[in-house]
Amino acid sequence: MFSMKPIGYVRSPHKQTQDVPKGLGAKHEAEGILEILPEFALGLTDIEGFSHLFVIWAFDRSEGFQLLGTPPSDNRPHGVFATRSPRRPNPIGLTVVQLLHRNDTRLGVRGIDMLDGTPILDIKPYLSNVPPEQLRRGWLAEAEARSSQVDAT
Amino acid sequence: MFSMKPIGYVRSPHKQTQDVPKGLGAKHEAEGILEILPEFALGLTDIEGFSHLFVIWAFDRSEGFQLLGTPPSDNRPHGVFATRSPRRPNPIGLTVVQLLHRNDTRLGVRGIDMLDGTPILDIKPYLSNVPPEQLRRGWLAEAEARSSQVDAT
Repeated sequence: MFSMKPIGYVRSPHKQTQDVPKGLGAKHEAEGILEILPEFALGLTDIEGFSHLFVIWAFDRSEGFQLLGTPPSDNRPHGVFATRSPRRPNPIGLTVVQLLHRNDTRLGVRGIDMLDGTPILDIKPYLSNVPPEQLRRGWLAEAEARSSQVDAT
Repeated sequence: MFSMKPIGYVRSPHKQTQDVPKGLGAKHEAEGILEILPEFALGLTDIEGFSHLFVIWAFDRSEGFQLLGTPPSDNRPHGVFATRSPRRPNPIGLTVVQLLHRNDTRLGVRGIDMLDGTPILDIKPYLSNVPPEQLRRGWLAEAEARSSQVDAT
């Protein structure tokens, strides 16, 4: 077992789960603040040089897990490890955000899909891309294709 | 505090830290296996449709943390949240791997930079890219530029 403690908290315009855009084509353009605890301030040295960050956080308002579930973006069930469901064996969330500005221990970011008050576990620089021509998006591409067929009728 | 438990383990050709390629231009082409525990098998449903996965794992052989440190890719210190140092406040690692094949609960992947036996905490589908023209790579780009100046002399 590994014990994780918050290094800070997310300040988000999303106050409850239903505020977060979900489903196919959902865009995460919301801006918010990553408030890092003062004791970890030194760990932010040079972070402003990166345009994008990985934020690893805890689904603190999710209980238990479900190995098979139907996500908002499809009407068919998929394995939890093939989705971003909050009901995971370890309640870890991962979001790529764009870093807009830094004010001491407050990082202004765009692309927030977390709830206000979400505990942050780690921040890492986002470095690499997978070339688009090598990327396959599994059931999500299929769900999008089915959805656009419905739209077209 | 959040308690995390392994959902499986990495089988890697890297048996010790010095086996993992490090520093500027290090390539992670190593192939290995993500062995998921049988009790979580159902959570892998449909995972084979994705070309790339996020693997979230635990630095189980790292002790304590260092907020400012000099990474193998530079000769200047940077904040831990601006590096991939193992000595983090929460010992969480993150790797994007390419999924090559699936055999029941064994996922064959390329891009392993974890040690053999590393506990896996979560797997998520890799979905989105940041457009290359929007990506800034902070001190790492600067370290690369300095390194190529040295190479050119």
